[in-house]
Amino acid sequence: MLSKSQLSFVKSLHQKKFRKEHRLFIVEGIKSVTEFIHSDYLVNTVYCTENVMPKFANLSQKIKLLQISPADLARISTLTTPQNVLALVQLPEAKDIETLELNGNFTLALDGVQDPGNLGTIIRTADWFGIKQIICSEDCVEAFNPKVVQATMGSLSRVKIMYTDLQLVLKKSNVPIFGAMLNGKSITETNFGTEGIIVLGNEGKGISEAVMNEIRIRVTIPGLGEAESLNVAISASLFCYEAKRNNLK
Amino acid sequence: MLSKSQLSFVKSLHQKKFRKEHRLFIVEGIKSVTEFIHSDYLVNTVYCTENVMPKFANLSQKIKLLQISPADLARISTLTTPQNVLALVQLPEAKDIETLELNGNFTLALDGVQDPGNLGTIIRTADWFGIKQIICSEDCVEAFNPKVVQATMGSLSRVKIMYTDLQLVLKKSNVPIFGAMLNGKSITETNFGTEGIIVLGNEGKGISEAVMNEIRIRVTIPGLGEAESLNVAISASLFCYEAKRNNLK
Repeated sequence: MLSKSQLSFVKSLHQKKFRKEHRLFIVEGIKSVTEFIHSDYLVNTVYCTENVMPKFANLSQKIKLLQISPADLARISTLTTPQNVLALVQLPEAKDIETLELNGNFTLALDGVQDPGNLGTIIRTADWFGIKQIICSEDCVEAFNPKVVQATMGSLSRVKIMYTDLQLVLKKSNVPIFGAMLNGKSITETNFGTEGIIVLGNEGKGISEAVMNEIRIRVTIPGLGEAESLNVAISASLFCYEAKRNNLK
Repeated sequence: MLSKSQLSFVKSLHQKKFRKEHRLFIVEGIKSVTEFIHSDYLVNTVYCTENVMPKFANLSQKIKLLQISPADLARISTLTTPQNVLALVQLPEAKDIETLELNGNFTLALDGVQDPGNLGTIIRTADWFGIKQIICSEDCVEAFNPKVVQATMGSLSRVKIMYTDLQLVLKKSNVPIFGAMLNGKSITETNFGTEGIIVLGNEGKGISEAVMNEIRIRVTIPGLGEAESLNVAISASLFCYEAKRNNLK
């Protein structure tokens, strides 16, 4: 059984403030936890119910494995329908922007994306299309928010996320910078080449003025109906798809 | 001020059971309410706060317009952050499947899509790409669920949704039937032509066996990474885009 203090420690990690303080975040579900164990992330503790213990039998000794009751798992879970396993994973160290490798592939840059489901879906879709790096402006929703983690379906373990001054990164970069907006060149007529940064803006306001100044190629997804805009995760997926279209078999 | 019985009447429409009983659903926000007023839907009542009354001054006499306090609006709203207007709209009559016009354009067919956000985003994206009709299996989430309505951003007013026996519709149709799945032909090499039905399955289980038997062209969105699958709204958007790609300017 989990002690009262253990319970409240894990539950504190539902909140950003305590994730930041303890440098830990929560991952749930067999598939996602397994993918984090096999990733570059450091998994600290795995809590699981008896029925799934065998799946985590051969863990490295650096990972604490604790069997808990379904009732306790429900208490520490962030989900409405708790899964059988919950892991505490170390937050990655903030990396210097000099470590960004922008050449030879595409990078997504998100300017103020607010909705956790949107960010999670963007991470999952980037992973699908082999885009391994996402740069977020400081005012984007936190990628280690449980709703984001859940929506990535494990892809967060494979896609690098960096929070930084987006404008500065764009200013320093020497690759093409594409921006998703309403009055640009059609995406079907855009030659993405083999590398670049694809910038997507906030759900309501789009790309901010400061970041807009750094966009070199303005690109639009043409519409045929009366809808006013597309959801940002949908736009992101169409950009990932179109940028990688020649590589897809 | 709203009476207690008015309050509880509108609040009852947060639930599917009462939407069905009273044949009414809720639409919120100036943009969405305005679009429903100008659509084929019949708007029954508009509740709005003083500051936005002028926007609804010239309503047809068939629509009841009531000014209410922000506090009352918050009480009847389905949103965490209520907007300034909420309308009650009549549920459309269930139409016979014989009225479906499948020739000359694309139709989406959803087999067991469960998540309201996904359905809403699919409706919004279909509208963007000029796809005006969606057929849902009976076990899909209800399109008049407030979370779906909200996620469509007004597009529900323009895209026809029909709930029916999907297998039967597919069996009777004479247009190409494309199915989104993991082991088909690449979407980049698929010729969509100018008409057809595009079938997308449930979030976890994909297309059901019964519906799968009716699929004539199996299509896959190729991946380049290790992600196991794409979100169904993302898949739907890539199919809409690719089917309409030659029409986009």
